[in-house]
Amino acid sequence: MAIVLGDNRYGKAESRLVRVVRDTDRHLVRDLTVSSSLRGDFDAAHLEGDQRNVLPTDTQKNTVYAFAKQHGVGTVEEFALLLARHFVTHVEPVSSAQVQVEEVRWDRATVDGRPHDHTFVRSGAERRTAVVTASDGGEQVVSGLTGLVLLKSTGSEFRDFLVDEWTTLPPTSDRVLATSLTARWRWSQVPTDGYDTAYDEVCALLVSRFGSLHSLALQQTLWEMGRSVLGARADVAELRMSAPNKHHYLVDLAPFGLGNPGEVFVAGDRPYGLIEVTVGRDDVEPAPEAWRDLPGFV
Amino acid sequence: MAIVLGDNRYGKAESRLVRVVRDTDRHLVRDLTVSSSLRGDFDAAHLEGDQRNVLPTDTQKNTVYAFAKQHGVGTVEEFALLLARHFVTHVEPVSSAQVQVEEVRWDRATVDGRPHDHTFVRSGAERRTAVVTASDGGEQVVSGLTGLVLLKSTGSEFRDFLVDEWTTLPPTSDRVLATSLTARWRWSQVPTDGYDTAYDEVCALLVSRFGSLHSLALQQTLWEMGRSVLGARADVAELRMSAPNKHHYLVDLAPFGLGNPGEVFVAGDRPYGLIEVTVGRDDVEPAPEAWRDLPGFV
Amino acid sequence: MAIVLGDNRYGKAESRLVRVVRDTDRHLVRDLTVSSSLRGDFDAAHLEGDQRNVLPTDTQKNTVYAFAKQHGVGTVEEFALLLARHFVTHVEPVSSAQVQVEEVRWDRATVDGRPHDHTFVRSGAERRTAVVTASDGGEQVVSGLTGLVLLKSTGSEFRDFLVDEWTTLPPTSDRVLATSLTARWRWSQVPTDGYDTAYDEVCALLVSRFGSLHSLALQQTLWEMGRSVLGARADVAELRMSAPNKHHYLVDLAPFGLGNPGEVFVAGDRPYGLIEVTVGRDDVEPAPEAWRDLPGFV
Amino acid sequence: MAIVLGDNRYGKAESRLVRVVRDTDRHLVRDLTVSSSLRGDFDAAHLEGDQRNVLPTDTQKNTVYAFAKQHGVGTVEEFALLLARHFVTHVEPVSSAQVQVEEVRWDRATVDGRPHDHTFVRSGAERRTAVVTASDGGEQVVSGLTGLVLLKSTGSEFRDFLVDEWTTLPPTSDRVLATSLTARWRWSQVPTDGYDTAYDEVCALLVSRFGSLHSLALQQTLWEMGRSVLGARADVAELRMSAPNKHHYLVDLAPFGLGNPGEVFVAGDRPYGLIEVTVGRDDVEPAPEAWRDLPGFV
Repeated sequence: MAIVLGDNRYGKAESRLVRVVRDTDRHLVRDLTVSSSLRGDFDAAHLEGDQRNVLPTDTQKNTVYAFAKQHGVGTVEEFALLLARHFVTHVEPVSSAQVQVEEVRWDRATVDGRPHDHTFVRSGAERRTAVVTASDGGEQVVSGLTGLVLLKSTGSEFRDFLVDEWTTLPPTSDRVLATSLTARWRWSQVPTDGYDTAYDEVCALLVSRFGSLHSLALQQTLWEMGRSVLGARADVAELRMSAPNKHHYLVDLAPFGLGNPGEVFVAGDRPYGLIEVTVGRDDVEPAPEAWRDLPGFV
Repeated sequence: MAIVLGDNRYGKAESRLVRVVRDTDRHLVRDLTVSSSLRGDFDAAHLEGDQRNVLPTDTQKNTVYAFAKQHGVGTVEEFALLLARHFVTHVEPVSSAQVQVEEVRWDRATVDGRPHDHTFVRSGAERRTAVVTASDGGEQVVSGLTGLVLLKSTGSEFRDFLVDEWTTLPPTSDRVLATSLTARWRWSQVPTDGYDTAYDEVCALLVSRFGSLHSLALQQTLWEMGRSVLGARADVAELRMSAPNKHHYLVDLAPFGLGNPGEVFVAGDRPYGLIEVTVGRDDVEPAPEAWRDLPGFV
Repeated sequence: MAIVLGDNRYGKAESRLVRVVRDTDRHLVRDLTVSSSLRGDFDAAHLEGDQRNVLPTDTQKNTVYAFAKQHGVGTVEEFALLLARHFVTHVEPVSSAQVQVEEVRWDRATVDGRPHDHTFVRSGAERRTAVVTASDGGEQVVSGLTGLVLLKSTGSEFRDFLVDEWTTLPPTSDRVLATSLTARWRWSQVPTDGYDTAYDEVCALLVSRFGSLHSLALQQTLWEMGRSVLGARADVAELRMSAPNKHHYLVDLAPFGLGNPGEVFVAGDRPYGLIEVTVGRDDVEPAPEAWRDLPGFV
Repeated sequence: MAIVLGDNRYGKAESRLVRVVRDTDRHLVRDLTVSSSLRGDFDAAHLEGDQRNVLPTDTQKNTVYAFAKQHGVGTVEEFALLLARHFVTHVEPVSSAQVQVEEVRWDRATVDGRPHDHTFVRSGAERRTAVVTASDGGEQVVSGLTGLVLLKSTGSEFRDFLVDEWTTLPPTSDRVLATSLTARWRWSQVPTDGYDTAYDEVCALLVSRFGSLHSLALQQTLWEMGRSVLGARADVAELRMSAPNKHHYLVDLAPFGLGNPGEVFVAGDRPYGLIEVTVGRDDVEPAPEAWRDLPGFV
């Protein structure tokens, strides 16, 4: 009945990396935030303060920047894999490495009517993500996005739900449906069209299905969005989504003698519904280590 | 030598309004955050707690939502004007009203390959702003934007600067220049092409000049950006900008035997340079009340 | 090889509740943010949009407010338990409920030299947390805190660590050690001194051990902090911590002919080390469901 | 009718400085965020990109850290004065310098029952501020605080207010009153008890009067708070406050057959009332330059 050290890991979080590719006058920019976290034989570091097995987190940061020069960034998934493999392979005490990358997108600026060679505008609210876990047992690649904000101004119902003594919500057959989507999907194999093209297709599928479906509930919408991705791409093993229901409350204008047929809304901050869903395949082995330690459900 | 009440104002801040225009199946969405603030005869409210002259901030919020139904939103400038005029004209103790609006943009989502009628994606990082001040003495309309993030991966120098005993910065003839621009411009008259079209043109001019100029310093870049707007649009009386110099530090990779010719950067959070500039006209009267109480220089 | 619905849950996040106890003139205030999330028989809601098993998230919010009146808040753990048990017991399709509570503390204000009956000042940066999971299989109570910011201005070393070709960090035998601690601990039984008293003791133990230990690394410090809690309290089954190493960089003042013997530091924002540790007991069954879906490691 | 350069300034914002005083084993910690901004002869920098008059913002940052070593931090007001005077006196093109400082407080941690020599806990939510403006024309010192969160659970009314056709708010004679106070006060002379002691007294006066007053409106409360400061301290020339009315909405529990006599509230995020007030003296010259460019009203 001793006190014992349990699961632990450590790393460097949120190294900000901007990589400019300037092989030609037409530059490219990739803007990443990289976090690494290592598991392994670190008992002595905790129990005795013995750091002989501990590669400094400062070194992990150095490796990120040096690899960005040596190998380039490529896709975020490949860059994360490169780093994770390095830590597992070349740092002896490390048995498992997780590398998380978040990317913000820069669009080429329009200058004098044309896309400019080396001027860029930050675009979009959403960020692309990658989480790679490498260990002796194998590798898992999870791609994703966060902060994709979607809204339907009609084509959404919520009715015929369970009612108990604490229920006051009236059913509705026409409401605003809005969310800020976080989605992550695990690859069963490297996409043959490459991670960048595949990312664009998954995003497009999610948005398109959100739009085309007449929504009976956010649960159904998320399920159908996920299904459209797995239906189109055999290389996606499973997909998880976390989606706040960003409530838009219809304003009661009756005190002013005004109707409000779905025109004027208060966009609420808190509280919000939160719907979390996994869409998978019945013949795919689960990979719990791929989802471990992520911020929440997904 | 008495203690006296000085300048004061009050209002309702950050009412979140989403206005759906659904006159046809092809909906429009305008997403605003509206703040109002009133000056006037409110001495008794402070000195004696007598509220007879105080229109509740809750009423100001109600007015925002009711007007959004009655009059529609139109442009953010027109909506702000409508509200500011109402408070000055119809609320007796009010001598001056300022209405601030911030708008986030929703783009039409692509669904099954086509722009959808009622599905939208939050777009861009920047937000459009309007500040309108109405009083018996007249009206001032200030349009603007905030959070427009721009980056040049080359074409920027900083050298031949003043050096004192605390200076260690090396001069550079090739650096990354990045900022998150806040700009506001005051109209001397209503733009004949309408506030929406005019906004798009001002943004395009700012981005284009940022890109086309070989930068010798952020000061010079901002001046030229502002000059391009005032040069193109005679209806802009003056323009103010607040621009953090979002430093991108070149990583020293020499310890690893690697060069780094402008390829690998750390994007810094804090501290940042902060450059604030006004571009005006020598024959235009200043309008200090238009800029009063704004968050900082601009 | 069909596409299938996997793990899912839903609920209402971040209901803001302020409960005033005014049984006597000496009021009490408890200020909570409450989130609930339910698992159960929700397949039809996803697959067919059939909401008959879905208790609206709005109802979950109502329940929070109604229970705050009916039962009072008591401790955050007890309030979370009350809600979680209600959802599992009285909402038929629900098989498991997780309720998370975050509390901010209000101290009694000093008015005319004495603690006031009904005036309060928000105190401290840290927030108290509780996560309760209830299912047919049992209940798990996890108490915690987040945002407890600690700093030692000396008494911290980091040296004799693993060095590879990417390592440039110099070893140090005197540095500033600072963190913003998140800790959570699972109870093996209800603390006999009550959750409020127990919370205070756990906090005091964590702070005291952070201070008394000569630190050889943050890993060792966290282990010792956790060990002091489990050593003092037999009712704590296990404790997890997530602790950013908030780097304080010694400023090089040599260019100005000045020394800097541990006096002037830059407090860095990003990147930061991130150390995550579990301290447990060798005779305690793990309870993975207690830690499921939390934001990250802990 | 030429386009002309108007008002401009530049500087380094948010240099994070932690100064440890370790002259004895009982360390002190002061934790500051320092911003400087300079006005002067910078026309050529804008118009021609000529930097010969521009002291780099990097140098301004260096000066902050070097002065923290050379002179120590003392009080935030004195440290800001030291820097502002330096820029105006020793940097030839500078005609006016503003230095803003924000300080977070660290309390001595309790370790083994006693306040520890070198371990600290971040305390309180509020931050202390100082804004110093120095020019050839003189110096202005404005002290302040931000983020002081106060709440009264009773002793607050709001009724007998102006009603128009858009008013729906019911009057109340018992509500929760809460705010997150920003206050700034300008000194007419250096306080003889020193800035640190004076700061503590001003804070205590503000809190005490907030508590002791039966509130008829936030306007009246702020006026009385300011009046108590100017009444007690002849060295305070004027005081400005910006105070959001952090609404606490009484929850309607009638649908559940429950009353709610001021016990259960929703704490709202947005919108919020915003009250801004100046309290001054009738025999004190205004000093507009002291308040210039601050974030908003105060």
